[in-house]
Amino acid sequence: MPDLTVDLNADLGESFGHYTIGSDSDMLDIVTSANVACGFHGGDPEVMAATFAMAREKGVSVGAHPGFPDLWGFGRRVMPFNPSEIERIIAYQLGAAQALAAYAGHKITYLKTHGALGNLTERDESVATAVANAVRSVDPTLPIMAIALSHLERIGRERGMTVFSEIFADRAYTEDGHLVSRKEADAVLHDADFAAERAVRMISNGAIETRSGAMLPAQIDTICVHGDNAHSVDVARKVRTHLEAAGISVKART
Amino acid sequence: MPDLTVDLNADLGESFGHYTIGSDSDMLDIVTSANVACGFHGGDPEVMAATFAMAREKGVSVGAHPGFPDLWGFGRRVMPFNPSEIERIIAYQLGAAQALAAYAGHKITYLKTHGALGNLTERDESVATAVANAVRSVDPTLPIMAIALSHLERIGRERGMTVFSEIFADRAYTEDGHLVSRKEADAVLHDADFAAERAVRMISNGAIETRSGAMLPAQIDTICVHGDNAHSVDVARKVRTHLEAAGISVKART
Amino acid sequence: MPDLTVDLNADLGESFGHYTIGSDSDMLDIVTSANVACGFHGGDPEVMAATFAMAREKGVSVGAHPGFPDLWGFGRRVMPFNPSEIERIIAYQLGAAQALAAYAGHKITYLKTHGALGNLTERDESVATAVANAVRSVDPTLPIMAIALSHLERIGRERGMTVFSEIFADRAYTEDGHLVSRKEADAVLHDADFAAERAVRMISNGAIETRSGAMLPAQIDTICVHGDNAHSVDVARKVRTHLEAAGISVKART
Amino acid sequence: MPDLTVDLNADLGESFGHYTIGSDSDMLDIVTSANVACGFHGGDPEVMAATFAMAREKGVSVGAHPGFPDLWGFGRRVMPFNPSEIERIIAYQLGAAQALAAYAGHKITYLKTHGALGNLTERDESVATAVANAVRSVDPTLPIMAIALSHLERIGRERGMTVFSEIFADRAYTEDGHLVSRKEADAVLHDADFAAERAVRMISNGAIETRSGAMLPAQIDTICVHGDNAHSVDVARKVRTHLEAAGISVKART
Repeated sequence: MPDLTVDLNADLGESFGHYTIGSDSDMLDIVTSANVACGFHGGDPEVMAATFAMAREKGVSVGAHPGFPDLWGFGRRVMPFNPSEIERIIAYQLGAAQALAAYAGHKITYLKTHGALGNLTERDESVATAVANAVRSVDPTLPIMAIALSHLERIGRERGMTVFSEIFADRAYTEDGHLVSRKEADAVLHDADFAAERAVRMISNGAIETRSGAMLPAQIDTICVHGDNAHSVDVARKVRTHLEAAGISVKART
Repeated sequence: MPDLTVDLNADLGESFGHYTIGSDSDMLDIVTSANVACGFHGGDPEVMAATFAMAREKGVSVGAHPGFPDLWGFGRRVMPFNPSEIERIIAYQLGAAQALAAYAGHKITYLKTHGALGNLTERDESVATAVANAVRSVDPTLPIMAIALSHLERIGRERGMTVFSEIFADRAYTEDGHLVSRKEADAVLHDADFAAERAVRMISNGAIETRSGAMLPAQIDTICVHGDNAHSVDVARKVRTHLEAAGISVKART
Repeated sequence: MPDLTVDLNADLGESFGHYTIGSDSDMLDIVTSANVACGFHGGDPEVMAATFAMAREKGVSVGAHPGFPDLWGFGRRVMPFNPSEIERIIAYQLGAAQALAAYAGHKITYLKTHGALGNLTERDESVATAVANAVRSVDPTLPIMAIALSHLERIGRERGMTVFSEIFADRAYTEDGHLVSRKEADAVLHDADFAAERAVRMISNGAIETRSGAMLPAQIDTICVHGDNAHSVDVARKVRTHLEAAGISVKART
Repeated sequence: MPDLTVDLNADLGESFGHYTIGSDSDMLDIVTSANVACGFHGGDPEVMAATFAMAREKGVSVGAHPGFPDLWGFGRRVMPFNPSEIERIIAYQLGAAQALAAYAGHKITYLKTHGALGNLTERDESVATAVANAVRSVDPTLPIMAIALSHLERIGRERGMTVFSEIFADRAYTEDGHLVSRKEADAVLHDADFAAERAVRMISNGAIETRSGAMLPAQIDTICVHGDNAHSVDVARKVRTHLEAAGISVKART
């Protein structure tokens, strides 16, 4: 068996003022990369600085995690911005994250888009292009974390950017390798052991495992686990434990 | 007469969405440095990118111009943030401005604080220290534009930072070199010719001219002119014309 | 000739803090009804109270003018809210306007939706229903101002609500009586005299005049004029002058 | 023993979008009055409507609970608004709450100010006056819930308004009947049983019990319990149980 490595990432730093979401401290003991909200859909300068500082102390890589300017909707609504406007809201948030990471003694080493904006990068070529444009214009060598088999993954690679291809630990995949819509009953894997074992199979085989059990060859650099409730911490820990038990090294790409 | 040079700066990019303030295009033909709002008290990612692009085309230097998070009050209210929180809100806005300047093909070459936050840097040592801390942590070599004779000017210099000392073209000065409070009747100079001639005297003498006509020796690197109405454009143009007629070179420090 | 009467309305109170839009004082000397922004797409408690007070002094009726929660986009973007959520954002803004009108010694006597939300009430039956639901649940007898021939006009009447049917002084109409899209070159009438004379013809004939000059019989209770620039004031004044010269009485419906 | 009655109130409806605070459903089974956030420091139109509907179903009275426009600080920061501006932000929020309560089939029967704004009504006469002015101008007969022995209690009574005087179940009192500052170690009572028994003593005696055990005669109409965590639910339930065991009737004033 080859020497396998994978990154484990989660969305963190999503609290806002008095409003707390997630178990960031626990999650930072498990994941190797933290996608940190940038203040538009969650997070604020206080939360960002504190999250970057805690990640630095725990040796966790940090990425800018921009979303639509929609705190009320937590970035999960598709907001009416055209690709050109999306470039600017991403650039703005990326810069803010870079500055607060520097302030906290850490460094942004990738960007991953959040929520509805992230979903658009999978299927909407113009949005995927906007994300690539924004990152390149602000920091030409900054890697992008992109959903495996998404438009963003392809466009980033075509442009010579560093792309970290991402799968989701607890989401089912269609036969063509896309995420099963949350409108379908089996979109989310609720069995943590099954999810962890499936993750091991996907990394070991370099392939996405579909609902039917088919394996679609794909680049897989990082696995996304959720971080927003107590159950999430258990799933994340289980995924990491299974990966390491299978001889797969869990570490950040950056 | 020695070879004299001064920068001419104005607060620009203060519009927000459909709400327009100022004559930015006209002002960018006159000033040599534009202090660009960063989205907290004015400005938005669209306005910021457009302002940076226009400044680049016109050869005008750009500075980050962070303020309190108070769009409703246009950054003119003293908001209840402690110095440590102020560091984070400045770092956030500075990064956002750096990123959008890069996006627009330009580069942030200084930082100047806005409105109530700017006023605090003159008289409140803890806020002045916070501004210096924020800039140094994000970009250690970035110059600060500071009110002449302010705490920020002193603290920046003590720390070895590059500080551009600033006077105001249309504001009266007390006998100890501070701005006359706007609560006093003669706080603002309404005669554009007098203001322009006074500016020439101050630059030529390297001194702040007080209400009584006394001259207080001071470092003067830049003159602030207002940019928020049609009258402002005339004043700014007159100041520039008088300076140049007096053999003073008007150009950015960066 | 019968005794004809029409109301003249404009969107006012759209300023926000330091950001000023419109010539509200001048417009309140011309119109008979002011649609006052409620703080979501424009306006703020200070502006609302001041506008209500000024309208009261000048004897102008006031309506609540709710929009999408989108200050950045001035309520002109179609935001992703479902009809049920739209009911709540309308109810919230209506109540806020009623309270501040009472505070200023005035009284809200109708509701008109703003911008993108207003446009949706013309063609989207579910949004039109949401508006009617919101108004009826908060204040069952409050009249609605609705675009002539819109879904909202029909639904309001079907439910026994008081509906003021509205035409636009400076917008061209298609052959089926709808507003010509702003994407088309001739969407807006730039000739103030023509607009004023057309308004007289429409009121005199009780009909909408289309681009081709056809007259479609329609209920017309109020004419909308714009209020957001100096030119608008001239157009509004001209419309009022022509109406009165033609013997049409200009007064509020409420 | 006389026939004693007291109201039990808690701050509820403080969630915002995806951000959840408190155990509103549990608390609404215990309290008799719910102070519902109005969207400025917490709450949103969705949360407000849902909270009003749930309170109606459970037979709980609802009050408007306005705060400073400070979602980031949860209304706990003293924001720079003068009394006149405070009147407008209270009127705005009161109207919004009245409308959404009507929308949900319920009715606002009192107003209580939140957080930093509430604290100011205890000691700042101008803010207390502003609150009374705002309520009277919007709804002259609406009762105010005011901290016992506060400026607001006195001003409300002087003006002939209905005032519900409020004590806090878990806060210690100084010898002159004011809340012990949170900066002091013994400001908050952590022993739920002691707090519950003290509440019984205060209601039975019609007096505020100070730190030293002294009893200061005072009007007491309602007891505030916290609602923002699981522990709060236990305290609230214990207070109610002790009151009822002592023969004190727990019911709303409205």
